[in-house]
Amino acid sequence: MKIGICDTTFARVDMAKYAITEIKMHMTNVTFKRRTVPGIKDLPVASKKLIEEEDCDLVMALGMPGPEKIDKQCAHEASMGLIYAQLMTNTHIIEVFVHEDEGLDTKDLKQLAINRATEHAQNIVKMLTKPDKFKREAGKGMREGRPDVGSV
Amino acid sequence: MKIGICDTTFARVDMAKYAITEIKMHMTNVTFKRRTVPGIKDLPVASKKLIEEEDCDLVMALGMPGPEKIDKQCAHEASMGLIYAQLMTNTHIIEVFVHEDEGLDTKDLKQLAINRATEHAQNIVKMLTKPDKFKREAGKGMREGRPDVGSV
Amino acid sequence: MKIGICDTTFARVDMAKYAITEIKMHMTNVTFKRRTVPGIKDLPVASKKLIEEEDCDLVMALGMPGPEKIDKQCAHEASMGLIYAQLMTNTHIIEVFVHEDEGLDTKDLKQLAINRATEHAQNIVKMLTKPDKFKREAGKGMREGRPDVGSV
Amino acid sequence: MKIGICDTTFARVDMAKYAITEIKMHMTNVTFKRRTVPGIKDLPVASKKLIEEEDCDLVMALGMPGPEKIDKQCAHEASMGLIYAQLMTNTHIIEVFVHEDEGLDTKDLKQLAINRATEHAQNIVKMLTKPDKFKREAGKGMREGRPDVGSV
Amino acid sequence: MKIGICDTTFARVDMAKYAITEIKMHMTNVTFKRRTVPGIKDLPVASKKLIEEEDCDLVMALGMPGPEKIDKQCAHEASMGLIYAQLMTNTHIIEVFVHEDEGLDTKDLKQLAINRATEHAQNIVKMLTKPDKFKREAGKGMREGRPDVGSV
Repeated sequence: MKIGICDTTFARVDMAKYAITEIKMHMTNVTFKRRTVPGIKDLPVASKKLIEEEDCDLVMALGMPGPEKIDKQCAHEASMGLIYAQLMTNTHIIEVFVHEDEGLDTKDLKQLAINRATEHAQNIVKMLTKPDKFKREAGKGMREGRPDVGSV
Repeated sequence: MKIGICDTTFARVDMAKYAITEIKMHMTNVTFKRRTVPGIKDLPVASKKLIEEEDCDLVMALGMPGPEKIDKQCAHEASMGLIYAQLMTNTHIIEVFVHEDEGLDTKDLKQLAINRATEHAQNIVKMLTKPDKFKREAGKGMREGRPDVGSV
Repeated sequence: MKIGICDTTFARVDMAKYAITEIKMHMTNVTFKRRTVPGIKDLPVASKKLIEEEDCDLVMALGMPGPEKIDKQCAHEASMGLIYAQLMTNTHIIEVFVHEDEGLDTKDLKQLAINRATEHAQNIVKMLTKPDKFKREAGKGMREGRPDVGSV
Repeated sequence: MKIGICDTTFARVDMAKYAITEIKMHMTNVTFKRRTVPGIKDLPVASKKLIEEEDCDLVMALGMPGPEKIDKQCAHEASMGLIYAQLMTNTHIIEVFVHEDEGLDTKDLKQLAINRATEHAQNIVKMLTKPDKFKREAGKGMREGRPDVGSV
Repeated sequence: MKIGICDTTFARVDMAKYAITEIKMHMTNVTFKRRTVPGIKDLPVASKKLIEEEDCDLVMALGMPGPEKIDKQCAHEASMGLIYAQLMTNTHIIEVFVHEDEGLDTKDLKQLAINRATEHAQNIVKMLTKPDKFKREAGKGMREGRPDVGSV
């Protein structure tokens, strides 16, 4: 199994490090291919290249959009691109975005980024190795990086 | 006939259960293939894979977008992806989204989610087995999950 | 000539009936293929299937988006999908949308829907049978369903 | 050289007339193929058909979006479609849109539309016949239809 | 190595000049192909043509969106087009946009544009020649044109 990791120099936390560590704890026989790009709008093509040119089975795209209105627009454009890239390749790209204004302060922001990257890494492990167990979590109100909210 | 069911761990109600039960009540010789993904933005590629890799004739994509502005943006991105996935495969993907802020309270939200999933399941049955009868409902102001509003 | 008609059960007026009647008054040797789907976001793939699987030369996609903000977003998504479907098939899909909040009251809304469907049917007749005459209306401030505003 | 001209009956000024006149003043051995459609959302597929079915080397897509919020959304959808059409054909489609609320009054609106169509026609002439001269205008703060703002 | 440079006559600073100068300082055996178009919405197809018709290995797309709401919409459309163009070609197009309202005054705007073009040129050099070094900047809060904000 080969997992692509795509991240940015714009982000303020090295989320990829935590994600890779978590995946390695749960999976053996997994290799990684990492690409770093300037910003989140560069992630779609970089992710697609990891799939088509580096034969990755799944890609994790990590980014931290800024707090301004224009940053939200960039995040939207990046997300649309990541969805198209998936449709063009029939391959999952798990988007792990942490918006800078999600943090109460910089300490909280850092912890949130670490938690979200780690929990999405756990999702990826489940999707790749235990899809039936993952199915049992359907509708359970799971959240990544913050406490789960549960079913209603 | 093979129906794909795609849902999320983010959702707070296991809508797929109700949809499958309803379809089984009306159709025989139908099989299901279910995939669970983390969030609604993962639904487009998962649905496309159900069509192209699992030979599903139609997919039901179920999700519950959160109440925040960013959640609305995610819902928009997911919807765009679901539409492209349909155009790329010439296959219907029936989107069943219940926004968390559509419910008056958690009890109402749960009932709404169950009703909408059930009534969209009925739509699917009609589209697949009685398209001419469905045509007679054109312009009738049908709503899924809430009372129909009728023609004007 | 074969015209596809695609409409929804969500709409509150059976606009297709009026459109078909109008086209038949002006064209002979025309056949229709009609598909009804639940909502406007199901129109793009249904229209594309009418073109590619039923050999329609042009499709009319009729729908009535609701008055809420989320309905406007759905209309946007449907419109984007209809435009892509056209680009993928090199075939016109004439979108006939009447927003519920365009009507002063339900009576006005119904008349507006009938008028718009009828006048877009006239546009289709002109595009298909008298493209040169249609060209002479360029820049004339034509409106469908409401009085024309004319040139400035 | 063959130039496609695509415009609408919705527009309130026959901008195409002015554009064609201007191009003819500067280029010989140029032919035109014109298509008129109802509204701006019909421009993308009509422009693509001019390129792929009529062998146009470049298309000018002219339209006048209305002043309402829904009209702005339509303009956005049309613009997205025009960009995709270009990417699918590797051919420029020069969008010439004049929003109705750009005019101070109807007289100003008409003059603005004439000026913008004329100046975009000049751009097309430069792009097709003097690309190196056009390159010297890079970063010069050029505006079409209003006075240039210049470099900073 | 061949780098495409795509810019506009709408912009108020000749950013391409600074970018090319910077790249030449760090790379030898590099050639450039430059195309100038009227506005940012013309950049996607022009960039794609540089990749597919001129064999560029990477493209830099430079533009300066205006300060009005409609200009923000144009920037969004251009960005979406640039992302699609990348996905269709598996080639990076580095978007270098400076919004006119980002500058405190015209002097600041000009300096910002020069700095951003220069620093994105440095990014390109690193991506093309030292991808492993660039990887070490992941999560470092880098900004182009303004001071870096650093990690949290």
